[in-house]
Amino acid sequence: MPNKKLSQIGEFGLINLIAKLAGKSKNLIKGIGDDAAVLPYTKDKYLLLTTDMLLEGVHFVQKDGAQAIGHKALACNISDIAAMGGVPIWVVISLGVPANLKINFIWDLYKGVSRLAKKFNVTIVGGDTNASSKIIISIAHLGEVAKKDLVLRSGAKKNDMIFVTGPLGGSLKNKKHLQFIPRLAESQYLVKHFKPTAMIDISDGLASDLKHILDQSKAGAFVYEKFIPKAKGVNLKQALSDGEDFELLFTLSPKEANRFLGTKKDFPFFYIGRIVDKKEGFVLINQDGRAEDISLKGFRHF
Amino acid sequence: MPNKKLSQIGEFGLINLIAKLAGKSKNLIKGIGDDAAVLPYTKDKYLLLTTDMLLEGVHFVQKDGAQAIGHKALACNISDIAAMGGVPIWVVISLGVPANLKINFIWDLYKGVSRLAKKFNVTIVGGDTNASSKIIISIAHLGEVAKKDLVLRSGAKKNDMIFVTGPLGGSLKNKKHLQFIPRLAESQYLVKHFKPTAMIDISDGLASDLKHILDQSKAGAFVYEKFIPKAKGVNLKQALSDGEDFELLFTLSPKEANRFLGTKKDFPFFYIGRIVDKKEGFVLINQDGRAEDISLKGFRHF
Repeated sequence: MPNKKLSQIGEFGLINLIAKLAGKSKNLIKGIGDDAAVLPYTKDKYLLLTTDMLLEGVHFVQKDGAQAIGHKALACNISDIAAMGGVPIWVVISLGVPANLKINFIWDLYKGVSRLAKKFNVTIVGGDTNASSKIIISIAHLGEVAKKDLVLRSGAKKNDMIFVTGPLGGSLKNKKHLQFIPRLAESQYLVKHFKPTAMIDISDGLASDLKHILDQSKAGAFVYEKFIPKAKGVNLKQALSDGEDFELLFTLSPKEANRFLGTKKDFPFFYIGRIVDKKEGFVLINQDGRAEDISLKGFRHF
Repeated sequence: MPNKKLSQIGEFGLINLIAKLAGKSKNLIKGIGDDAAVLPYTKDKYLLLTTDMLLEGVHFVQKDGAQAIGHKALACNISDIAAMGGVPIWVVISLGVPANLKINFIWDLYKGVSRLAKKFNVTIVGGDTNASSKIIISIAHLGEVAKKDLVLRSGAKKNDMIFVTGPLGGSLKNKKHLQFIPRLAESQYLVKHFKPTAMIDISDGLASDLKHILDQSKAGAFVYEKFIPKAKGVNLKQALSDGEDFELLFTLSPKEANRFLGTKKDFPFFYIGRIVDKKEGFVLINQDGRAEDISLKGFRHF
């Protein structure tokens, strides 16, 4: 193990290291490397387990408002469950709070969590609270997915069509990251009526998260600049690289995509490109038809 | 909601507030207020879900050593599962780490987690990593318990005998909190051969954690000073009030206790007192037979 710093190997280098230490279980369906772990449950269902930690000064500031912070903390988790084709059910919340923080703030933070929880039939079943210099919220979420609905990152195949559920970029600037409604209804619509081959939620940015699908699916992609839906006031680079959009990114086989495109839908969906052979690379096709490598435009945590 | 500070209402005041916002689910067996949440699973088993957050400067310092810190983070969780009569299975780990931290440190921290995980057949199935000014480890643990083995905090009855699994006090000073082996074998022995009426792991201190059992069981207790097992170099106050011992505290009906005391055991167990009517209070009987109220000697997080 070289004596490097985290900032040198990055989050994904770290995740690869951790995966080596994770241990093996013959019962495990899918461990590290997807939006949620997939665990054995009943004859027809799997359990989904995921966790997200939000830190003051990194993912929010106090003046974002306590309710918005609580909302975001839970919404990130629900988004992960949605990205697997599942439904959220139970959460436990670990909280770090400064001892001099007003109780009103904590109350409002939980109110933000609990309002969204009610909306999605999620129940808060436990937690842990500690004194901390800054506010920390770590939520672990247990959900379930019908076996036939499970979508991993690893199933994208050559010629599959790539879609996203909404405009991208600028989420931090326009405060979308504090207010977004996780795309659970969209995900349920998709898995109940179609058969997505791969899915992920866009938390690190389109380029970075599509790269996760390509890595796990051992594939490449052509993405068309003209088709990428951009949030208001956002340029191409931001639409590709900004994090925290929490839209779903998914792939459908050409046959399913045809059926999908021909169906009247209650939600907006945007076609952005297609899966190609790994050796063809991860390529952006510009408005004028030029190709450029986009594999390194994503968000980095370190 | 009065505009108080957290330091004024304390952790347990906060937990009571949170419980009001937690939401209800008719499927939930036990939510906030025990060592782990108890969730529906199979015909014969429940799921157990718990989470613990460890913070640099609060629960550990870097010079405690990365492996010891990782060990502690997982051991706390396993201890919670053991306190329900269950067995640990899956964990997800949220980590906050300074960007300039050496990878070796993070590697060793995970090695500390993974060594203990292997020992207890626990598999790391996911996580989340973020840049943070200080080190944060939040582990959520999913375990299971046979329905017939489940032990809550709420089942202690008048005349039940109270036991602990080991000497108490001084855990932070003597570094026990970094090295302890969670009392899973003891818990499994207990629930497979006897029928504990209540159980908790001692994380906040004997006085504070026995108080949790008494509150949930609507009962009082007499604890005998002469029977409290003290760690080396520890006085009575420390044995009552020091946190992070992670011994199990449990109660047995008089009949079961008799059977228990008459059985040859592979583990040490210490009788410390008995459950009484709530109106008799929570009382320490001194060496010289005097009684004093001990309800407020526990550890406070804020």
